[in-house]
Amino acid sequence: MISKTSKFVAEMLGTMVLVLMGCGSAVIAGADGTTGVGLLGISFAFGLSVVAMAYAIGHISGCHINPAISIAMVAAGRMKMDEAIRYVIAQILGAIIGAGILYVIFMNHPGAEMKEWALGSNGWGTGYLDAYNTTAAFVAEFIFTFIFLMVILGSTSTKNINGGFAGLAIGFSLVLIHIVGIKVTGVSVNPARSIGPAIFAGGAALSQLWLFVVAPVLGGIAAAFTYNLLMERPEAAK
Amino acid sequence: MISKTSKFVAEMLGTMVLVLMGCGSAVIAGADGTTGVGLLGISFAFGLSVVAMAYAIGHISGCHINPAISIAMVAAGRMKMDEAIRYVIAQILGAIIGAGILYVIFMNHPGAEMKEWALGSNGWGTGYLDAYNTTAAFVAEFIFTFIFLMVILGSTSTKNINGGFAGLAIGFSLVLIHIVGIKVTGVSVNPARSIGPAIFAGGAALSQLWLFVVAPVLGGIAAAFTYNLLMERPEAAK
Amino acid sequence: MISKTSKFVAEMLGTMVLVLMGCGSAVIAGADGTTGVGLLGISFAFGLSVVAMAYAIGHISGCHINPAISIAMVAAGRMKMDEAIRYVIAQILGAIIGAGILYVIFMNHPGAEMKEWALGSNGWGTGYLDAYNTTAAFVAEFIFTFIFLMVILGSTSTKNINGGFAGLAIGFSLVLIHIVGIKVTGVSVNPARSIGPAIFAGGAALSQLWLFVVAPVLGGIAAAFTYNLLMERPEAAK
Amino acid sequence: MISKTSKFVAEMLGTMVLVLMGCGSAVIAGADGTTGVGLLGISFAFGLSVVAMAYAIGHISGCHINPAISIAMVAAGRMKMDEAIRYVIAQILGAIIGAGILYVIFMNHPGAEMKEWALGSNGWGTGYLDAYNTTAAFVAEFIFTFIFLMVILGSTSTKNINGGFAGLAIGFSLVLIHIVGIKVTGVSVNPARSIGPAIFAGGAALSQLWLFVVAPVLGGIAAAFTYNLLMERPEAAK
Repeated sequence: MISKTSKFVAEMLGTMVLVLMGCGSAVIAGADGTTGVGLLGISFAFGLSVVAMAYAIGHISGCHINPAISIAMVAAGRMKMDEAIRYVIAQILGAIIGAGILYVIFMNHPGAEMKEWALGSNGWGTGYLDAYNTTAAFVAEFIFTFIFLMVILGSTSTKNINGGFAGLAIGFSLVLIHIVGIKVTGVSVNPARSIGPAIFAGGAALSQLWLFVVAPVLGGIAAAFTYNLLMERPEAAK
Repeated sequence: MISKTSKFVAEMLGTMVLVLMGCGSAVIAGADGTTGVGLLGISFAFGLSVVAMAYAIGHISGCHINPAISIAMVAAGRMKMDEAIRYVIAQILGAIIGAGILYVIFMNHPGAEMKEWALGSNGWGTGYLDAYNTTAAFVAEFIFTFIFLMVILGSTSTKNINGGFAGLAIGFSLVLIHIVGIKVTGVSVNPARSIGPAIFAGGAALSQLWLFVVAPVLGGIAAAFTYNLLMERPEAAK
Repeated sequence: MISKTSKFVAEMLGTMVLVLMGCGSAVIAGADGTTGVGLLGISFAFGLSVVAMAYAIGHISGCHINPAISIAMVAAGRMKMDEAIRYVIAQILGAIIGAGILYVIFMNHPGAEMKEWALGSNGWGTGYLDAYNTTAAFVAEFIFTFIFLMVILGSTSTKNINGGFAGLAIGFSLVLIHIVGIKVTGVSVNPARSIGPAIFAGGAALSQLWLFVVAPVLGGIAAAFTYNLLMERPEAAK
Repeated sequence: MISKTSKFVAEMLGTMVLVLMGCGSAVIAGADGTTGVGLLGISFAFGLSVVAMAYAIGHISGCHINPAISIAMVAAGRMKMDEAIRYVIAQILGAIIGAGILYVIFMNHPGAEMKEWALGSNGWGTGYLDAYNTTAAFVAEFIFTFIFLMVILGSTSTKNINGGFAGLAIGFSLVLIHIVGIKVTGVSVNPARSIGPAIFAGGAALSQLWLFVVAPVLGGIAAAFTYNLLMERPEAAK
């Protein structure tokens, strides 16, 4: 029996790692492929954070480290609401701690300045990367989270005999989503990951935060219903 | 017992993910290694789409998401023709949906224009990347699909005790094929992946579509016969 | 029963590989993403060294190849002190041998010169990459080793049914840490990895060596206590 | 019981894939990280060829696809000489076929010219990449093959309970070796991989071929004896 405290700490530390390392790759190492790690390096940073934590804390909390996942798990009938609420609180706390540690490291070098997007905040529109509009941002975050949850629901299904590979499949699918989507929104698919840096960055990162809560949560719920209704009906197991 | 509907939906969604994310990496993120994800990033996008979907829907439909695979499976005696036909229809539908979603996202940013190759269409000859000729394009697509199917047939063989790794091996082999072949044809090895974007792109993408149907299907069938005759005879199991 | 000699040789060779190949990627192949392997390539070199050795020698010595890990394992109650001391000696010997082989290869090409950082030494401050200050360097090395050990302790826990994946998870977490941290300190999280090249490079690499012993060891011990107290209490198994 | 023919075909096709795809990544896709796949992409191409083939043909022939491995397996007491001879013949044949297919594809595009190194031949000295001298080339090929065989011998040991991961560990170790060593010799660690392109390239690629036979074979044999004597004595199993 794993205690509530263990699960809370695991989700908090896991989300801290995701935000510190994922956003850190963009902030510290840089999106330029010649002098930095490039968009591909940033993509691997986010995805490998999930691979690492999935095998580190998966046996403790299931390694959601993402409120959109915990909420979708409730929608899919795989988690109770009260546990999901504790998970989401832990995730948001962890994300803020992760962004805070990144802030401390990053500000301690010459030339560091706190720009609007300086901590890897998500965003869209004029001034953010390729300036995709709100429609593109919403569709992208919705469909990317939908795909992410399809991978999670399928790879962790009790009917899937290759369940041990779920951590790799889920982490690599996050690499994939970042490869495609960074230029659109920086890729959230995770409200906690957006909240952490936005608190430090302020400005547009805060005022645009709603989309990175609403679209991932809706995309995750849509995936839960699609999966249960059309792909692997829970009642078929009776 | 998995229903026909579940398999149909799984193959349709899986192919949608492959086309949206694979082609999306080229269209949205870009083939330049300094400012975009580079050819390597595009290669990982196609391959990791397969890794992700293999563990997400493999237990439902086997995750073909490619008509050349379903047809080769019939040739290898591992699938019935009527099921393969349903798979191929689902795959083509999914590919068109994936290209459509990509179209919606991509067109919603400043400067977007619908060029001939704008949705990651396959092609060859003057004006397409390094302008390889028809012989090179046909040989490349044939041999790459042959190799791809060798990996699929071997890694999913009932005699292979490491079958759980098939999703990784198959997905990574698609990364590999893209690393080598993007400059030749953009890499299809999958008729559905070519049909999806060609419908939106039109022009040469449509008129050259025949090669990306014929060469992958022939390469896959050649692999099926080579595997059964020379490497692991099915009758040896009697 | 595996002999002390086998374990000693395994740890020595494993650390030799980590230092030769990890540092070698920076020294021989180069941090420029256009002409060399880039920061991402260096990150993969360090991490894949661990993946490779984990499955090569994991069944012999556990593949620590890092004094911070062996010491944290003592703190976590998973290893005896006298064995840890033998491990640390083997690791430091191996690191020196690895740096020596790299020196021999590297110096045998035109234009090779032994610069202060020429063998992939760790460092910080003016003249080292982005000139992060001592606070940033210490915080980064502490927290990165903390994260690294969380992954190690969790993925190798006897309660983790996916223990076979530990080598991948641990190696990929080292890829991740390098993606984020190279510009801060070059990334140590491993006293032996820092000692090896510093002996050949001398200068600041030697005078700054203390931080790459103290911060990783403290970060590892902090992870051991955090893990045992808050995430998976050893006494819960009684 | 797997027939000699099956093993021969498997080794031949596997080596064909390694040479066609590994060398093809350099020849077709290019070593420049901005416009091509870069050194990192080439490294992944060689390594993922091994991952793919390990899970495709590992259950048939063990997937050596490298004479240095087959000879080291004889030295380690894990293979009979007459079988090794058949393997080596198949490997060399496959390598020549792979280089031939690459030749056909590559020559069918504008501007293709058959330069001395044009098919991904190995080499060293003036005119070859960073012009490392013979000492560096020999030491590098010897030690890299030594490391490669350590990973192979350890990960496929009957005492290693994670044997299913061997294909990933071995393939990723080849990625690693290429990341570090391409600028020294282009990386062989495999006589067949060097023979294939050298036959088409001629010139220095042929006259320098001796080193890529001698150094890998000696490095592999050294690893076999080191492993058996110092790390996992075969007689300890009695």
